[in-house]
Amino acid sequence: MSNPRAKHIVRDEARSEASPAKSKTEKKPRDERWRELLKAAARVFAKKGYKSTSLQDLADEIGILKGSLYYYIDSKEDLLYELVHGILDGGIANLRSIALGGGDALTRLEAVITTHVEYLVDNLAETTVFLHDIKHLSKERRETLAIDEYEQIITRLIEEGQAEGTVRDDIDSRLIGMGVLGMVNWIYRWYRPGDTVTPRSLGTFYAEMVVSGIHA
Amino acid sequence: MSNPRAKHIVRDEARSEASPAKSKTEKKPRDERWRELLKAAARVFAKKGYKSTSLQDLADEIGILKGSLYYYIDSKEDLLYELVHGILDGGIANLRSIALGGGDALTRLEAVITTHVEYLVDNLAETTVFLHDIKHLSKERRETLAIDEYEQIITRLIEEGQAEGTVRDDIDSRLIGMGVLGMVNWIYRWYRPGDTVTPRSLGTFYAEMVVSGIHA
Repeated sequence: MSNPRAKHIVRDEARSEASPAKSKTEKKPRDERWRELLKAAARVFAKKGYKSTSLQDLADEIGILKGSLYYYIDSKEDLLYELVHGILDGGIANLRSIALGGGDALTRLEAVITTHVEYLVDNLAETTVFLHDIKHLSKERRETLAIDEYEQIITRLIEEGQAEGTVRDDIDSRLIGMGVLGMVNWIYRWYRPGDTVTPRSLGTFYAEMVVSGIHA
Repeated sequence: MSNPRAKHIVRDEARSEASPAKSKTEKKPRDERWRELLKAAARVFAKKGYKSTSLQDLADEIGILKGSLYYYIDSKEDLLYELVHGILDGGIANLRSIALGGGDALTRLEAVITTHVEYLVDNLAETTVFLHDIKHLSKERRETLAIDEYEQIITRLIEEGQAEGTVRDDIDSRLIGMGVLGMVNWIYRWYRPGDTVTPRSLGTFYAEMVVSGIHA
């Protein structure tokens, strides 16, 4: 699997050597510019949809010339892949460390929900792109993504809770898991920065609501 | 507000009179063909996304010539509008009649959830289009849609339950409402025809889970 970020760095360096006149676009350190580009892409894709966004839209959003985008990417899809990959891997790393930690399953499930809500709120645009535009990635790239891992982590905790006797076991763990995931992921559709409820309070409340809802 | 269906009927009749040779495309009653076209559009939009779907894709899906689509619509957006409008109005009519019916608020909330789950499962493709592609409608058309009404119906029932003392009132009714809506709406992302759980069982279980989760 190719790593588009590695690719862009190689391209960037190659070009810099070949044309020192381009150094104006490199006033900021390269990594900062790259993060800025990803943030801008997330905002524009989330608002207009990936398919409706042109490279010109992205260049306008970040305030560079369209041609300069080719220092960083070969195609618009490189940005989509990097965004989706980044948001997924970050989220899963968070949840995995909680899920595999100590404590009873229901307590870990509560912590997973609270943490996931905070992460999602901190990354609303990226989450929107992840949830809406993943189908526009090539099959090869989609197959490198651990898309089902959120579901697996949550479902496994519910099954552990059922085995421990704290979670009602008359219902398929998958149905509970998808319900929990829906409640939490839905936040990207209505939460906006500045909302009166803080991410932490929201996470705590949803975790409580789930625990009461599925307690044996 | 213009009604695209009325428009297509007028166009259709005008053309039929002008060119009787076209009657081959009208073997089926016009309304049946129109419903078929909407169903096909829902399938293709849901799978490929509205922006990525061409009129040619739609013609291929339904098995007619691309030019024949203009008997029914002036533009691809007419189909999107009709789909989104139809799924929304049907769903809201269902829920409104339950919400305004008799019984305590928590019982009506349970019935609303069960009914909404069944409706959503019966209309998976249309729901997907509604939830993903509404942003591609013109502002004028979007403003004719009662998009927030699902949320309002559910939130109002929760507030009634809080007033009756059956729903915990230490949490904002809006947060509970969005959680319920998320859990239920998320179904479009994972449920597929032939799933081992029936729509009714799923609706009943989610309704139960919510009631246990928010009970005072």
